[in-house]
Amino acid sequence: MTETTDFDTEAHRQQFQDWLDRFDTALRTRDLDRVVALFGDECYWRDFVAFTWNIKTVEGRDAVHAMLSATLDQTAPQGWKLVSTPKPDAGAVGAWLEFDTSVGRGKAHLRLRDGRCWTFFTTLRELRGHEEKKGRRRWRGTDHHYGPGRKTWQELRAAEQAELGHTRQPYCMVIGGGQGGIALAARLRRLDVPTIVVDRHARPGDAWRKRYKSLCLHDPVWYDHMPYLPFPDDWPVFTPKDKLGDWLEAYVQLMELNYWSSTTCTAARYDAARGEWEVTVERDGRQLVLRPKQLVFAMGASGYPSVPKIPGQDQFAGQQHHSSAHPGGEAWRGKRCVVLGSNNSAHDICADLWENGADVTMLQRSSTLIARSDTLMERVIGKLYSEDALEAGIDTDLADLMQASVPLRVAPRLNVPVYQQIAEVDAAFYDRLRAAGFMLDFGEDGSGLHTKYLRRGSGYYIDVGASELVAQGKIKLRSRVEIECLEPDGVRLTTGEKLPADLIVYATGYGSMNTWLAELISPEVADRVGKCWGVGSATTRDPGPWEGELRNMWKPTQQPGLWFHGGNLSQSRHYSLYLALQLKARMEGLAGQVWGMEAVHHKR
Amino acid sequence: MTETTDFDTEAHRQQFQDWLDRFDTALRTRDLDRVVALFGDECYWRDFVAFTWNIKTVEGRDAVHAMLSATLDQTAPQGWKLVSTPKPDAGAVGAWLEFDTSVGRGKAHLRLRDGRCWTFFTTLRELRGHEEKKGRRRWRGTDHHYGPGRKTWQELRAAEQAELGHTRQPYCMVIGGGQGGIALAARLRRLDVPTIVVDRHARPGDAWRKRYKSLCLHDPVWYDHMPYLPFPDDWPVFTPKDKLGDWLEAYVQLMELNYWSSTTCTAARYDAARGEWEVTVERDGRQLVLRPKQLVFAMGASGYPSVPKIPGQDQFAGQQHHSSAHPGGEAWRGKRCVVLGSNNSAHDICADLWENGADVTMLQRSSTLIARSDTLMERVIGKLYSEDALEAGIDTDLADLMQASVPLRVAPRLNVPVYQQIAEVDAAFYDRLRAAGFMLDFGEDGSGLHTKYLRRGSGYYIDVGASELVAQGKIKLRSRVEIECLEPDGVRLTTGEKLPADLIVYATGYGSMNTWLAELISPEVADRVGKCWGVGSATTRDPGPWEGELRNMWKPTQQPGLWFHGGNLSQSRHYSLYLALQLKARMEGLAGQVWGMEAVHHKR
Repeated sequence: MTETTDFDTEAHRQQFQDWLDRFDTALRTRDLDRVVALFGDECYWRDFVAFTWNIKTVEGRDAVHAMLSATLDQTAPQGWKLVSTPKPDAGAVGAWLEFDTSVGRGKAHLRLRDGRCWTFFTTLRELRGHEEKKGRRRWRGTDHHYGPGRKTWQELRAAEQAELGHTRQPYCMVIGGGQGGIALAARLRRLDVPTIVVDRHARPGDAWRKRYKSLCLHDPVWYDHMPYLPFPDDWPVFTPKDKLGDWLEAYVQLMELNYWSSTTCTAARYDAARGEWEVTVERDGRQLVLRPKQLVFAMGASGYPSVPKIPGQDQFAGQQHHSSAHPGGEAWRGKRCVVLGSNNSAHDICADLWENGADVTMLQRSSTLIARSDTLMERVIGKLYSEDALEAGIDTDLADLMQASVPLRVAPRLNVPVYQQIAEVDAAFYDRLRAAGFMLDFGEDGSGLHTKYLRRGSGYYIDVGASELVAQGKIKLRSRVEIECLEPDGVRLTTGEKLPADLIVYATGYGSMNTWLAELISPEVADRVGKCWGVGSATTRDPGPWEGELRNMWKPTQQPGLWFHGGNLSQSRHYSLYLALQLKARMEGLAGQVWGMEAVHHKR
Repeated sequence: MTETTDFDTEAHRQQFQDWLDRFDTALRTRDLDRVVALFGDECYWRDFVAFTWNIKTVEGRDAVHAMLSATLDQTAPQGWKLVSTPKPDAGAVGAWLEFDTSVGRGKAHLRLRDGRCWTFFTTLRELRGHEEKKGRRRWRGTDHHYGPGRKTWQELRAAEQAELGHTRQPYCMVIGGGQGGIALAARLRRLDVPTIVVDRHARPGDAWRKRYKSLCLHDPVWYDHMPYLPFPDDWPVFTPKDKLGDWLEAYVQLMELNYWSSTTCTAARYDAARGEWEVTVERDGRQLVLRPKQLVFAMGASGYPSVPKIPGQDQFAGQQHHSSAHPGGEAWRGKRCVVLGSNNSAHDICADLWENGADVTMLQRSSTLIARSDTLMERVIGKLYSEDALEAGIDTDLADLMQASVPLRVAPRLNVPVYQQIAEVDAAFYDRLRAAGFMLDFGEDGSGLHTKYLRRGSGYYIDVGASELVAQGKIKLRSRVEIECLEPDGVRLTTGEKLPADLIVYATGYGSMNTWLAELISPEVADRVGKCWGVGSATTRDPGPWEGELRNMWKPTQQPGLWFHGGNLSQSRHYSLYLALQLKARMEGLAGQVWGMEAVHHKR
């Protein structure tokens, strides 16, 4: 019971029902003035596909009016139903709704303040007539009557694998078979969208297996479930990378995905006349052309390694590589290693090198958000994703919706006090780090880790122990420095100091996902589509103007038939649903007009 | 709400609480006369490990008295708690309880009639201090602090696989890696019991993959979940064999079982002095000796093929094999096939041969229980295992316990009216079968399929379509016959008729599991342990005297350190828990005295 003692549930239920009745009437009569009169002066409507066929937040009454003017007829929402008890929520009162649209069923969340809508969140959850064949709708597995020529599951599956991509083209092709690609493919399979996933590695899960050996997920298990097949209840809190690799490999098999491993995409071209892609791949050394209608790039939000150009790189006599190519510290016992960067990978790699007996120096160029894993779990993630949450009835799906119900303009504001508390409870920890010379921040506006992740996908470390090594000087630190140049035997810093080095690791992050397009399609298409990720917060690496949703992620782009999917396991799970529904709707001719696409403000 | 309108829940709750208070007091004071006075004239106490360290049902007050005299001190039950609302149940009123014992925690089910106990069911569910590391107790996956020599999950797992069975002996060895063996191994792993599973096939799941190609499970998905990793919610109702094979293979991997494939057990010998087994295996052609303390035979309740000896078998020119070796009908188009038997495999194989264009004759030697799959689901299985059941809050675990809460003496009686209804609703179906000459029964006492399964593990067909082919004469039928002898080109029946044949399939079932012992250990041990399966019902293939539980299954046998595990997926799931707890308790020195072992009445 999270209700406060003086919270009058029945009165609030009545208030929500009244609001909903008036809202429904105003929508049905297309009386937009009456609709927006139900919204407060400060108000947000976040829509996932249901109204806008986009992932879109509008802010303020005028924007709500404009959005509905364009989308109300095609959406024809009805049957609004209050399906939860209103509860105090983020300084307002919130409750869950269900509704129908012209093509499907939706869930919504409404927060009222003084009787008016403060935040509204609408989602399309399934297409009518194209529901997943689960539960009572599941396939029988056998016909229960016999006839010559009846095919077994095994024969049907073998036939599908023999045909798809050869005599029959997939409707959708997903480039990249990490958690994002396969979560999407699993959803598409349930929706009967013929799909091929291609991945350059030999086995599903290899993208994880091949990383440095000490890697474990920094997010806890409750946050990391894949769609449809949750981890068992003894799964470790922080999944070791090889175990995750094995899970993803089994997932591909059990979900019956059409997964082409050892397959590299070499070029893609959109044939606008035919409305389809021509994608060239190399599979086990053989060249093949696929012609999907929809092409999804799922090569990792952290996919395109970003290595800085530094004078002298060609003269350095030791080894140098990007963090994504770093295998682990075993070969570096007694060697001198310099790691450029101070985020997650940099910390993990430094700690691993130190454990293996290397001499390690971390170069911190700019301040970093550090949050201790346990603290983060207790004060942030655990509210929605934990055993406590499960006991309170918040399952993974509800947690995903709850998290998404907060508009991205509002979320940072709600997080500031949380990180102020974190700064207090872990004050001694932060003091030790500062004393070691480490530059700390909680984001430019103090709004914490998740916001920083959405803005730039970098700039933080979830501490699982390496910070202690930094504080104790076991991992040496140079901060407020850049590399001036490399010399054959080491690194010259901008401070003038010379660090002898046998190994340099560039833990310098990743470029925007549209960089892949420049390589595989053309620089023109990459530019037209523009930067991925970030919300336009006008903070470092996330220039304005404000867009309110992640750029180009899980929604239509400026290139027809081109989509981006990715992110951590949580995003891969939740957003794959909305992307899958958009793709299925296009296949079935059910998709409405896309509304509210942002202009492209940035190329990379 | 299954409560009838005139059911006074509060009064019944009070009655249960009163009963429980008196029961608890009488147990604590060791006043057995007062305990048995709480039981009715007809009464049953079924115990799974909690009191008897056995799987045991006692019947009547005297037997309850005797059981408690022997077990009460070691069990020291306490903390009895009513944990469900009493409900009308099988002509009585039933409710769920929890309790503690000297070593662990238990669940119980109590049915009261006129205020006295009619049926009591007690189970040990976990050992105190040895709880599964799940939920809040799960492993973190990483230490969150660094130190030289820290091992990754991958390294620990590789080390375990390198050591176990070589430099370190498993505590437990499971022969047979089908659903039974791996369900048990998964539970043992959670309990930290070092275990090796050996299986002769190249890949887990092959025992299913290698069967005739049209095979699908005859039990529906809700009944078939493995422990810890339920099938996804779109899993087909009747799992195709290859899909099940793939699932089991993934299960072995994901549950991190120590599974030795391509490994054949060739001999086993018990060293009584050392209290351990010496088990010789051939693994990939190499001979190895394992020395486990506990040896579990999980080679399939339907494991030991039973082929009748028939004069002329050595002269038959065509092919002849047991149903378990039958690959499917593809090679038999236009050929004449005779299938001896009329149970599940016989029907499946006949239908498959017919679909493949063979000329098929089924030989029915004795009457067979036929139940249509849909009817069975609707009237029998679906009460506990279905979407309806799930919606009513009956999850798999609760369903397993509900099913087990009915003593085996009582269950047949409750099933008679159910099968009378089935005979009515499917009367037209049964009439067509009888008209085709098919001999039908519902068990000797009309008690239906599950009872027949427990009594003899045979004698029935769950109709998924083949009966229609029999009724229509597409599968030819000879009933009330045996094979007199084989001739080079066919089969001579006891009626004198000669059936030309290119193929003879012996769908003649399986022998008792202790036949394996005669082969691998010695005939003496096989005889000492005696027949497996069956309850002593004094019906065909299940001779008396009444034993009340399946012989030798999941409980101590007359051979120390020797256990049997097996059965369908449902039994593999549920009973593996109690077997795993018995093994773990022995490993930790926590097991109490076994009470109530039956004398061996039958050798096979």
